[in-house]
Amino acid sequence: MNHIDAILNAHPNHARMDSIPGFAAAIAACLDCSIVCHSCADACVAENAIQTLQRCIRLNLDCATICGMTATMLTHAFDPDARVLHAQLRACLAACVACAEECARHAQTYEHCRICAEACHACERACQQVMERLPAMAMA
Amino acid sequence: MNHIDAILNAHPNHARMDSIPGFAAAIAACLDCSIVCHSCADACVAENAIQTLQRCIRLNLDCATICGMTATMLTHAFDPDARVLHAQLRACLAACVACAEECARHAQTYEHCRICAEACHACERACQQVMERLPAMAMA
Amino acid sequence: MNHIDAILNAHPNHARMDSIPGFAAAIAACLDCSIVCHSCADACVAENAIQTLQRCIRLNLDCATICGMTATMLTHAFDPDARVLHAQLRACLAACVACAEECARHAQTYEHCRICAEACHACERACQQVMERLPAMAMA
Amino acid sequence: MNHIDAILNAHPNHARMDSIPGFAAAIAACLDCSIVCHSCADACVAENAIQTLQRCIRLNLDCATICGMTATMLTHAFDPDARVLHAQLRACLAACVACAEECARHAQTYEHCRICAEACHACERACQQVMERLPAMAMA
Repeated sequence: MNHIDAILNAHPNHARMDSIPGFAAAIAACLDCSIVCHSCADACVAENAIQTLQRCIRLNLDCATICGMTATMLTHAFDPDARVLHAQLRACLAACVACAEECARHAQTYEHCRICAEACHACERACQQVMERLPAMAMA
Repeated sequence: MNHIDAILNAHPNHARMDSIPGFAAAIAACLDCSIVCHSCADACVAENAIQTLQRCIRLNLDCATICGMTATMLTHAFDPDARVLHAQLRACLAACVACAEECARHAQTYEHCRICAEACHACERACQQVMERLPAMAMA
Repeated sequence: MNHIDAILNAHPNHARMDSIPGFAAAIAACLDCSIVCHSCADACVAENAIQTLQRCIRLNLDCATICGMTATMLTHAFDPDARVLHAQLRACLAACVACAEECARHAQTYEHCRICAEACHACERACQQVMERLPAMAMA
Repeated sequence: MNHIDAILNAHPNHARMDSIPGFAAAIAACLDCSIVCHSCADACVAENAIQTLQRCIRLNLDCATICGMTATMLTHAFDPDARVLHAQLRACLAACVACAEECARHAQTYEHCRICAEACHACERACQQVMERLPAMAMA
């Protein structure tokens, strides 16, 4: 049901990306993290102890927004402006790290926070891998 | 790597949703369709015959935006305003139908349009299924 | 500092829109409502009585997302798919009505809810006006 | 009709921000730049010489997305994670600079590109001013 690999392979500039594995995986990880953060925010709002989760809600919402947008920007990566994509991946990493940190503090109490921290870490790793390969692409 | 099912199950109001299967599938289909439409727009912009693809680019961008947002709104579905969610699912269906129609016209020339039409149809079906089950939930 | 009117007038299909006043105003109203709803959600999360504001936070977030996206879609309105734009404006109206209703319940306690209800009503009126003029445009 | 100042003043943590002017202005500039970039992309897609505007369309779309999201994140700034907000403002600056550069190359041919470059520069300046004041806020 997932069409990400297929659509990237069908892009007219697809050859340009053959040396850069990890794009499809990073897009999938960003989408996953985005929706998990949105859901974690909604779950936090529904908890009785919502007052202990204010910072978590805010970081969830920021991380959800940034990750969703980063996924979109990665689809423009066949001819990217390397500076913009780099800066955006850096912001995505910062959001994932901050959100994972805060969610980890509540992970023993709330399963949704435990899962969210896990999705943030996975997204962090996927973005990191793309960032490491970007300079080569930018020079190509 | 996909955490959607897990995070929905960890929501404090999760019991309320047990009679409504299809939410996780609809979220996944919306995310998939959103990113595929973004990528199809980017691929269209890169084609030599871009001038024949203007309408396709616009519908891709609209469908990408609507589907991405519908995924987010479905994560609020544990205590939704049924009118808002209904109207949004209807807009999502309209966008998927229109984008699939246009992409289908180019499907024999461009593989990305063929894949995009397929993802739009899958999203259309997934949203339809949630819509049919919503009234029951709204009354619960 | 606002460039909305200017950029719409600079669009190559701009003549097609001359008979449809209200687009620039609707875009501005959607952007305003979107950001006000985001801010109201953030303010609700910061209130001591956050537990009475759960529904308000969810409707704020939905309305914020829908209005932001509707603004974007209105910029594609020079050659729109009338069905998609209609369905989206309808979803935007539903979100504004639901959010204004809920915010109005807290308007005497929270100034941010009073302001948010006002922005929702303004956005509702602006979208309504565009909807009424769309059929003519769709036929043009 | 613009409610941004009013809603920020109604935030329960509003005192914390009194020493940081420029937030409302930066939010307005981000929203303006976002919608202008969306409209410039749509106008480019409608131009006969669309093939000379491919890079412009991509940068327009990236800048539109980043600016819209930055506006949202600034509404969480009453208790921000300074690292995340900093990284996001940096990405926003990079997007505005890159888009303004590209649009400026077409500014003599296309009025929408001239206006878009102007909106990007205005957004760049507004984000820069907030960034310079952030460290003080982060320490407060």
